[in-house]
Amino acid sequence: MVGGGQGAFIGAVHRKAMALDGQYELVAGALSSTPEKARVSGRELGLSEDRNHGDWQALLADELRRPRSERIDVVSIVAPNHIHFPVAQAFVEAGFHVVCDKPLVHTGAQAAELVAAVGRQGTVFGVTYNYTGYPLVRQAREMIRRGELGTIRKIVVEYNQGWLATKLEAEGNKQALWRSDPAQSGGAGALGDIGSHAENLVSTVTGLKLESLCADLTSFVPGRALDDDASMLLRFEGGARGVLVASQVNTGLENALRLRVSGTLGSLEWRQEEPNRLLHSPLDGPPRVLSRGAPWLHEAAQRATRIPPGHPEGFIEAFANVYLGVAAAIRARAKGVAPDPLEADYPDVEAGARGVRFIETVLESARSSAKWTRLAG
Amino acid sequence: MVGGGQGAFIGAVHRKAMALDGQYELVAGALSSTPEKARVSGRELGLSEDRNHGDWQALLADELRRPRSERIDVVSIVAPNHIHFPVAQAFVEAGFHVVCDKPLVHTGAQAAELVAAVGRQGTVFGVTYNYTGYPLVRQAREMIRRGELGTIRKIVVEYNQGWLATKLEAEGNKQALWRSDPAQSGGAGALGDIGSHAENLVSTVTGLKLESLCADLTSFVPGRALDDDASMLLRFEGGARGVLVASQVNTGLENALRLRVSGTLGSLEWRQEEPNRLLHSPLDGPPRVLSRGAPWLHEAAQRATRIPPGHPEGFIEAFANVYLGVAAAIRARAKGVAPDPLEADYPDVEAGARGVRFIETVLESARSSAKWTRLAG
Amino acid sequence: MVGGGQGAFIGAVHRKAMALDGQYELVAGALSSTPEKARVSGRELGLSEDRNHGDWQALLADELRRPRSERIDVVSIVAPNHIHFPVAQAFVEAGFHVVCDKPLVHTGAQAAELVAAVGRQGTVFGVTYNYTGYPLVRQAREMIRRGELGTIRKIVVEYNQGWLATKLEAEGNKQALWRSDPAQSGGAGALGDIGSHAENLVSTVTGLKLESLCADLTSFVPGRALDDDASMLLRFEGGARGVLVASQVNTGLENALRLRVSGTLGSLEWRQEEPNRLLHSPLDGPPRVLSRGAPWLHEAAQRATRIPPGHPEGFIEAFANVYLGVAAAIRARAKGVAPDPLEADYPDVEAGARGVRFIETVLESARSSAKWTRLAG
Amino acid sequence: MVGGGQGAFIGAVHRKAMALDGQYELVAGALSSTPEKARVSGRELGLSEDRNHGDWQALLADELRRPRSERIDVVSIVAPNHIHFPVAQAFVEAGFHVVCDKPLVHTGAQAAELVAAVGRQGTVFGVTYNYTGYPLVRQAREMIRRGELGTIRKIVVEYNQGWLATKLEAEGNKQALWRSDPAQSGGAGALGDIGSHAENLVSTVTGLKLESLCADLTSFVPGRALDDDASMLLRFEGGARGVLVASQVNTGLENALRLRVSGTLGSLEWRQEEPNRLLHSPLDGPPRVLSRGAPWLHEAAQRATRIPPGHPEGFIEAFANVYLGVAAAIRARAKGVAPDPLEADYPDVEAGARGVRFIETVLESARSSAKWTRLAG
Repeated sequence: MVGGGQGAFIGAVHRKAMALDGQYELVAGALSSTPEKARVSGRELGLSEDRNHGDWQALLADELRRPRSERIDVVSIVAPNHIHFPVAQAFVEAGFHVVCDKPLVHTGAQAAELVAAVGRQGTVFGVTYNYTGYPLVRQAREMIRRGELGTIRKIVVEYNQGWLATKLEAEGNKQALWRSDPAQSGGAGALGDIGSHAENLVSTVTGLKLESLCADLTSFVPGRALDDDASMLLRFEGGARGVLVASQVNTGLENALRLRVSGTLGSLEWRQEEPNRLLHSPLDGPPRVLSRGAPWLHEAAQRATRIPPGHPEGFIEAFANVYLGVAAAIRARAKGVAPDPLEADYPDVEAGARGVRFIETVLESARSSAKWTRLAG
Repeated sequence: MVGGGQGAFIGAVHRKAMALDGQYELVAGALSSTPEKARVSGRELGLSEDRNHGDWQALLADELRRPRSERIDVVSIVAPNHIHFPVAQAFVEAGFHVVCDKPLVHTGAQAAELVAAVGRQGTVFGVTYNYTGYPLVRQAREMIRRGELGTIRKIVVEYNQGWLATKLEAEGNKQALWRSDPAQSGGAGALGDIGSHAENLVSTVTGLKLESLCADLTSFVPGRALDDDASMLLRFEGGARGVLVASQVNTGLENALRLRVSGTLGSLEWRQEEPNRLLHSPLDGPPRVLSRGAPWLHEAAQRATRIPPGHPEGFIEAFANVYLGVAAAIRARAKGVAPDPLEADYPDVEAGARGVRFIETVLESARSSAKWTRLAG
Repeated sequence: MVGGGQGAFIGAVHRKAMALDGQYELVAGALSSTPEKARVSGRELGLSEDRNHGDWQALLADELRRPRSERIDVVSIVAPNHIHFPVAQAFVEAGFHVVCDKPLVHTGAQAAELVAAVGRQGTVFGVTYNYTGYPLVRQAREMIRRGELGTIRKIVVEYNQGWLATKLEAEGNKQALWRSDPAQSGGAGALGDIGSHAENLVSTVTGLKLESLCADLTSFVPGRALDDDASMLLRFEGGARGVLVASQVNTGLENALRLRVSGTLGSLEWRQEEPNRLLHSPLDGPPRVLSRGAPWLHEAAQRATRIPPGHPEGFIEAFANVYLGVAAAIRARAKGVAPDPLEADYPDVEAGARGVRFIETVLESARSSAKWTRLAG
Repeated sequence: MVGGGQGAFIGAVHRKAMALDGQYELVAGALSSTPEKARVSGRELGLSEDRNHGDWQALLADELRRPRSERIDVVSIVAPNHIHFPVAQAFVEAGFHVVCDKPLVHTGAQAAELVAAVGRQGTVFGVTYNYTGYPLVRQAREMIRRGELGTIRKIVVEYNQGWLATKLEAEGNKQALWRSDPAQSGGAGALGDIGSHAENLVSTVTGLKLESLCADLTSFVPGRALDDDASMLLRFEGGARGVLVASQVNTGLENALRLRVSGTLGSLEWRQEEPNRLLHSPLDGPPRVLSRGAPWLHEAAQRATRIPPGHPEGFIEAFANVYLGVAAAIRARAKGVAPDPLEADYPDVEAGARGVRFIETVLESARSSAKWTRLAG
């Protein structure tokens, strides 16, 4: 693991997600950009001294020194965004599998390089767009794939938080600090932090390709360098239209990620804060409440489920599903067989690159006086 | 009453709204554009023969023939949109008070004429933007007026229906027919029918002035002349941003009008389908569920309430509140006193005109390749 | 109308319910037990002086003096409970139709007398168990009648309020005063006021006959003479079991009337505070959200509906449905035809008598140390 | 671990709960009552051969053979109910800490023996009443402890499931089989399986002592030996009253465990299927939605929380909190210090024994014709 030491929220989540199903063991790390802190964090987590490193370069060098059978299988990159590219690139080029937090990298050019490297190496590369790990998100994706909603017409996705409604970064909050620092976060604030999750959710669930968009970015909190609020209109190939909202100044809201997809035959609504329910409103009958684990769900949703319906699963379980997908892909690769798509179900480096292009396009649109900005690629 | 005869949905709603509080009596009408049908409808509703007219011109002429003390106080115009302007103008110019359905008229020029006429005559003119009659919408408006949300930053309003997801107008549905006919509805479909309600809700609740917008209108159902789906970005004077969505092809949805307003001190969320609750999320405490009739609501909400909390009020009661507001204004005028603003609380001709300008601007933006189109006035 | 003058909550509700559909006109009354107050109330409501009486005896005498064609069709009794019996009996015996508030009377003997009198006169007699007027309650009843839930096994009904959590009657609150006074309310407090609604809801929806019950009544607020909290186990003929809870000391709750019925093929859940939704959970599929007005509802529910789905109806509309049912029965009787059961749908004097027997049995059980007390009849 | 091999639902849950926070490692087991199956299960879970036993006696003997430093710290008993007593007793007497599933044992006498043994040995003994591990259940408990609800008056708890609405045990369903077999489950069906959870939830949250109860047990599914439905009235020391419902034939319901507690100053409502919200309705203000992780929660709730508000935690996390509590108690004991009550927060052997007495009393009441049956002790 690279990053995720003391004080890092997301590192602990990754570790719990890895632990949940007993398929991962944390054996080596460079857990902070501050060598001292990295080592203290590693000790707390029970890393042996010889695999507890002060920086990621040392970690990589040490792993490469070891015989293949003793090396880590996969590195998990949970450091702030600006570190993703060099670390990911180095580990991919050295032949390691990678799990990397999102957004993948800062520029489309970096993303393209990474996609190419993964292609050359044939390694597994997962990006923790964790929300698509929820079983009912997979149910939604499968229903749309099978045409149960007909032709998709309209998509509204919102991810609203309130925690940055005040200038938290001025009070020394670590999470707020790096997120509002262009050097660490890239040019996008709320857009990169949560807007990219919304993009991934839409792209994953609908399978539609975004064609062009029209964005309005705002920094509401005085003195904040990056956007804390984003709204945009979306046009998809094939004619579907959409709206995406991402805001971190929606006072009082927590993680209000909500998706509504409407097609000619029905619509779906899902909310992250009550993830064990999916509302399906068909054209010709009453809305149906689909609950996680119910026997009438598609196999893709059932596979992502651990416990019976009515016993809620949550964020960590969804996160763990991404790790399970990566593990299945690694095992298949080790055996030299094609992975079972129902098992090896995770957001890959292409999804990560698509997210980076999305952010770049939004930033371009926000600066433009033209209504529509097309997505490259 | 003009319009609202057999087969008209909204006429019956107006009559129930008028009846509820015993402040209106229906005594005269021209209830359809087809004279025969107008008279049959009038008989069914118990109009006396001499006040049951075949067209509105006859109604107006007959009323003017009568001595002042026997005339109607107010005319309610519930005919399709294209009839609004001539009828409203004629009755206003003749000195009658008017309640008119929305959208008020087809063009900003007509709206301006009507505003001017009402100004000259000093009559009362209400527009049945009925959703702002809900007690908790008035609570929201009052909370914002008093600064309880701080400075407003972000507004998201959606009005989604599904009933036009198929080509209902091809099956002879009367409601669908006139709404999808540009001659009767003007240039706006879903935009005029429900988008204008969303605009009125935002303007009423926040008191903010819309500065510019960027709209995307779509006709999803093949062969439909007018938009059945609208999405737009909003910018308000003073810096608030917003999103407005209005769609009639959201399969399976009924009248999903939802408003979320977020300010520096808190946010509010209200949904029309559960109108007796308003969720208030303050910056520094848990969300509070405000229910209609609760003693801690503001007077403006209490006045709009008939029965104790926990016994739901609905659409008709909210509609009736518009009529109560108009009645209070008429009574005040009759007495020659200033109306109590808590009683004479209704959307006026200015609100109607603002709605017309909004529609015109959206249509202009939808045709434009520029990102932002400014609102006139 | 007898009772329902100034300060009476329920009188105004009855009047709005009557007005809503234009089938009733209030022409005569004795609106309070205080003659002076009765007349002031009548004047406010626009009664003509000769039909605005100081007591109900005068009202009855005056009506009988008038020729049949000028008499009232029906009297609405909305006075406190202890007045119900003499007034109802007198008007029934004089051949008038009656609408009476619940609980019908104080004793089973009085109820039996009233049932017999109505039988002899052949008049229409409605009891305003208003909650069964909600369209989705009628949908539930119809689904069970048609066997869509299979054999009913378990019923849980709760009616919880919080407004009597403190000793409001000591503060002069009129509603609290008469409800907590045995002389006016009979021997039952919360039991009679809201527990009887719960009984009616269960009996109406399931059609099951209550066989025996086991009750625990409590007066939580010190110094209160009557129960403010009731819990009981229920056994129905045929083997179904149930629980009924009625409490007026559930701090913070408003009118939380909730019904859940479970059978071999499915279950239903309905909540009065969100009356436009009925949740139907079938044995072999996902829960279905049935909304008022949706085309897949049964005719019995459709007839009770005024406006399209998604535009909420509420308490007054449900109340008005009882009045509509009574009006349909009166019209049928006037025409000498059998009433259409879908129109003449209202709780009758038998339902009222059943409610009185229920209250008597609960009071008996509460005093008994035996587990089960059987219902008479 | 004893029990929990292939096909056992709850064993996997225990293991995920143990793994989540990295404080437990599974090193030895006797995972089934069938030796063959035990060993296959152990191999699948990666137990070393010498610690993978065919029966629990072998496991215990083997552990005792090992030097203290190599022994397991704690044994987790997840076998069917009838195994609990001998295994628990043997391990306690041998000085091991124990985590045991609920209900603890079959008789009050067994429970008393176990309590005495734990007392003698001074070991840690946790019972996995997992629902009280939810952070907001701990918040509720803490609010009541601090008097924020005033004096508790009324408690309604329901645990409704639908999975046994048909005779699943006749179809070979393993979960249904042992639960409906008196030899394995004891004399209680739904009562023991889920009614005991409801009892624990009430006792834990309110701290009230149950004084007497009046129960009605039913077996609705023909041919089922044990109750599948239970309803009862409750009386608590100090005057509070309550209702407890537990049913496994509530068609279509999943794990609908719901608690409502009402006191003189406010009431609380919590539902297991949406465990991240607690509704607090104070006497003199609007209901407050308390969400897991919010800064205004009490420390007892905060300690039970892993991730920020709005990212849902679920069943496994709550289960894991019981294991964390046990681990904290074990660590404190190892250090010879008093455990921090905020850390060592878990249902202990006394709670387990109380649950057994509750079940015995309910069974006695169900057979009795007297209204009230007192709880022993």
